[in-house]
Amino acid sequence: MLRQEEYSAATAATRGSGQNDRLLRALLRQAVDVTPVWVMRQAGRYLPEYRKVREQAGSFMRLCTTPELACEVTLQPLRRFDLDAAILFSDILTIPDAMGLGLQMHEGEGPRFERPLRTAADVNRLSVPDPDDRLRYVLDAVRLIRGELAGRAPLIGFAGSPWTLATYMVEGGSSKDYGRVKGMMFRDPNTMHRLLDVNARAISLCLNAQIEAGAQAVMVFDTWGGVLTPRDYREFSLRYLRQVVAALKRESEGRRVPVILFAKGAGLWLEDLATSGCDAVGVDWTTDLSEARQRVAGRVALQGNMDPSVLYASPDRIRQEVQIVLDSYGPGPGHVFNLGHGVHQHTDPEQLAVMVNAVHELSAKIHSQAGASAVPV
Amino acid sequence: MLRQEEYSAATAATRGSGQNDRLLRALLRQAVDVTPVWVMRQAGRYLPEYRKVREQAGSFMRLCTTPELACEVTLQPLRRFDLDAAILFSDILTIPDAMGLGLQMHEGEGPRFERPLRTAADVNRLSVPDPDDRLRYVLDAVRLIRGELAGRAPLIGFAGSPWTLATYMVEGGSSKDYGRVKGMMFRDPNTMHRLLDVNARAISLCLNAQIEAGAQAVMVFDTWGGVLTPRDYREFSLRYLRQVVAALKRESEGRRVPVILFAKGAGLWLEDLATSGCDAVGVDWTTDLSEARQRVAGRVALQGNMDPSVLYASPDRIRQEVQIVLDSYGPGPGHVFNLGHGVHQHTDPEQLAVMVNAVHELSAKIHSQAGASAVPV
Repeated sequence: MLRQEEYSAATAATRGSGQNDRLLRALLRQAVDVTPVWVMRQAGRYLPEYRKVREQAGSFMRLCTTPELACEVTLQPLRRFDLDAAILFSDILTIPDAMGLGLQMHEGEGPRFERPLRTAADVNRLSVPDPDDRLRYVLDAVRLIRGELAGRAPLIGFAGSPWTLATYMVEGGSSKDYGRVKGMMFRDPNTMHRLLDVNARAISLCLNAQIEAGAQAVMVFDTWGGVLTPRDYREFSLRYLRQVVAALKRESEGRRVPVILFAKGAGLWLEDLATSGCDAVGVDWTTDLSEARQRVAGRVALQGNMDPSVLYASPDRIRQEVQIVLDSYGPGPGHVFNLGHGVHQHTDPEQLAVMVNAVHELSAKIHSQAGASAVPV
Repeated sequence: MLRQEEYSAATAATRGSGQNDRLLRALLRQAVDVTPVWVMRQAGRYLPEYRKVREQAGSFMRLCTTPELACEVTLQPLRRFDLDAAILFSDILTIPDAMGLGLQMHEGEGPRFERPLRTAADVNRLSVPDPDDRLRYVLDAVRLIRGELAGRAPLIGFAGSPWTLATYMVEGGSSKDYGRVKGMMFRDPNTMHRLLDVNARAISLCLNAQIEAGAQAVMVFDTWGGVLTPRDYREFSLRYLRQVVAALKRESEGRRVPVILFAKGAGLWLEDLATSGCDAVGVDWTTDLSEARQRVAGRVALQGNMDPSVLYASPDRIRQEVQIVLDSYGPGPGHVFNLGHGVHQHTDPEQLAVMVNAVHELSAKIHSQAGASAVPV
């Protein structure tokens, strides 16, 4: 169980000095005063102040590639809500764009690549981009945000998973049935493995550059791993997630840099993710957190998992659902509260405030009991 | 294990008399000579002969509501492939349409209701439609198809689940985040329960009418149950699936009418489905069939679960994947081969023929061994 000095250190760090490191502590399953909370896509279209900056920028890509604007929208939700983390405003497709695929983002259309990968020759031409050159705007944004945050909350860097990037790179955009990328996987598995290996190296390099620039935790989004069979998942997604995790710098500024894996629809292979070398697994709302906790058996922290649609409910109901999620994780360290997926575009920001405040308020008891029970009588 | 007389009866039934009842036997976990196979959406756009009839009909709804045309497209795949079942050509949204919601199906747009349910008053106005009146075209199609099939293969009737219909009825069509239907579920659960109860009664009535008209098995599609948390799934979907199953006629023409539940993305609550009173559970490809079989522990047969994208692979690879699915279910009765979801629109029909033939060819050994091992030495 928790040692009292750990608990005291946590409360001192978060309450006394203005340095909020709850997120980092919870990701490493260390004691905290209250359960940390942040929200996937917390910087986004549901915020009027985001829509204003987005409109001024003229395009989504201009927002991503202009460090000052990326910094501004990253910080917006932290001005409104008592969040325990900032996450870099960027897009998982910046890496394939840096590989020369020509990312197009048109309003209401979804992403599209001008030069998708259709043949073995297309894949063979790929090389790992130098982040200091082709993704400098990402690193500049990280540096800027870290400075502005000044310890208010840790900054999470991120990237897509090798498989998830491959789906967009081969399909040329979003897909309904993943016919092209699975076609390549089935008809030419060697080419698919080469693509996944290039992606894994590019992702590791980019995440390590984000860590060097100041990211204090990193998250890998395996958004489309859930479209594979369990066997194909292990061969074409998990294997390259492991490769990425193994290649990451795990210490920076004298502190461990936790790695979070989020795999949508991956409730069935949670155990595999828990042994991938990561520190925490993000779970969606289709998995019960108490079962998930049993299944990962203390190997990793868990992040999640309220249904984002609960934010369409009444404030009372939101608080009830927060309590249910907290109870389902149960006592003890290792829980980061989040939605099970990105916040919906039509969410009322006031509703998100209700959730964030409820997490802190309702979880204080859990952690004070945990601390108290660790004190020798 | 299997008794020899059961095995002999099965082979006689399917080979001798021109009566193919493999599907019905497998759904009841009785012995068969080869694993039966059919394919979700086997009558559909991937077939050029379907596209021709569809074009002549002028609209999808005209195809559904004209029994001769529905019969024709139902039978088309059985002329091409050695399939062990026909499934009524229809749409799950015919029931809400019969309830007065005004179904619109425009090419490339997805379904849309003219009068979606937005308020408690909208829901309170609903009543259960008389299938003999408002859905006569469905029953006429069933009668016509049964006559035309003449025992060549059993006919499966179907409907959507109460929850899945509710998503379309409240959203007014397809949805990305199910905000409206979940909004009603969270804000006004009583109204949602009333809607689900009406749906369950309408679905039972329609399925029973299909059985009386000649459907020999029925299938309930819970396509969108997987968007709920496990707790909400039990309260808002599973409960009403049970209500439907409990209300069904289970015998017709002196024979048991098996009930199949298909719940997309429901790998995590397979046990719940197995205890719902159904005879078989359809599983998608994200669940390993051998694990699924262990988890349902002999309570139900399983239907599935090849990834439809495998049909984009080479014929050799398709045969390999068929073998993998057969092996993953393993020996013994209770497996109906199917894709884990509907066949993709861009599938080459020749590739589907490779799969269907491979299932029969590769599974014969499994069943002759099962039969042999049941013979006393």
